[in-house]
Amino acid sequence: MTAHTESLEIRTRGKGTYEITGEVARIVRDSGVRTGLVTVFIQHTSASLIIFENADRSARVDLEAYFERLVPEDSSYFVHTAEGADDSTSHIRMVLTRTSEAIPVADGRMQLGTWQGIFVFEHRRAAHRRTVSVSVVGSGGPGGR
Amino acid sequence: MTAHTESLEIRTRGKGTYEITGEVARIVRDSGVRTGLVTVFIQHTSASLIIFENADRSARVDLEAYFERLVPEDSSYFVHTAEGADDSTSHIRMVLTRTSEAIPVADGRMQLGTWQGIFVFEHRRAAHRRTVSVSVVGSGGPGGR
Amino acid sequence: MTAHTESLEIRTRGKGTYEITGEVARIVRDSGVRTGLVTVFIQHTSASLIIFENADRSARVDLEAYFERLVPEDSSYFVHTAEGADDSTSHIRMVLTRTSEAIPVADGRMQLGTWQGIFVFEHRRAAHRRTVSVSVVGSGGPGGR
Repeated sequence: MTAHTESLEIRTRGKGTYEITGEVARIVRDSGVRTGLVTVFIQHTSASLIIFENADRSARVDLEAYFERLVPEDSSYFVHTAEGADDSTSHIRMVLTRTSEAIPVADGRMQLGTWQGIFVFEHRRAAHRRTVSVSVVGSGGPGGR
Repeated sequence: MTAHTESLEIRTRGKGTYEITGEVARIVRDSGVRTGLVTVFIQHTSASLIIFENADRSARVDLEAYFERLVPEDSSYFVHTAEGADDSTSHIRMVLTRTSEAIPVADGRMQLGTWQGIFVFEHRRAAHRRTVSVSVVGSGGPGGR
Repeated sequence: MTAHTESLEIRTRGKGTYEITGEVARIVRDSGVRTGLVTVFIQHTSASLIIFENADRSARVDLEAYFERLVPEDSSYFVHTAEGADDSTSHIRMVLTRTSEAIPVADGRMQLGTWQGIFVFEHRRAAHRRTVSVSVVGSGGPGGR
């Protein structure tokens, strides 16, 4: 059995979705784990993770437009606004999506579906540097099984 | 330590919730893992997973009615509609629920609460064949501990 | 490799958020796991988990106000109301947040970000006793490596 944990640094350019599937796949490959799971975790409360359609960019355009409507920045009842109008909305959009995803590994590969990509969903207007922690646990590994 | 990954095929009949608790429990049992965790992952972007009240069907009726209102199919601002009015709505309903769930295993059993069931939440109108990947990692297993 | 599963009892005083970060950190520490992951799972369908901003209480005030608006108790179309107006709303608020979170462990510590805390999100008006199951899997452990 092998357990490996590693961090990724993702630079965002403000609100939007940023694919990290390739980086996560590389960590799984390097871990040598053949059977087990990979956990992807974002260490922030104003950005989140999603596993989303990766083929047609228009699906992400709709997603982003939907979240602008679902959690509008001009909601007058918010009190947590020290960092601007995107302060509470960022936390709420984060909580409505995901902080962690756990993905099975078989035959040394993440078991993502054909159209699935892993994305960082940035909720702040400003560019940010985000840290994603990735853990791989399972059988296989550098020393064989 | 044991690591086991297996796939389930679920046939849906269009929009609605489909329980898979029994199938996941069977995989945990067959794995022989006594202490650890089971990861359930759906390989799609227009269907999702939920862990939900499994006793009273009316709770799921309300859930499904709520999602029709929260993410309405007639939203005029969607641009990703190549596959019909349920195209972007399916992706958004998926992202608001779950793609993966990780459930602790103790004494050889998933630690679900009394009223919890695991369901595939189908967001497309048409019937689909869905793949759910299940990974069990922990101590115990066919060869003893 | 080590696998350890343990339960926490959390007493809530009705709707609101209740931090459990310290209790989860203690289980990780006691497990002796140095590299791997911790899975946190709530065994209920009318309370959920969130990983949320832990510094400024006002962020949670906004979150709770937002959910009162997003899933209003006076929605006339709900049929699952046997346990009161907070019956279906509790299940729906739960499904929009999280039942499980998986957090990488490195150097013997959960890889939470600076501002992240783990909270039980109680959706029922009445006080409840909630069970959270915590599983730690990885290398290290009482017996060394």
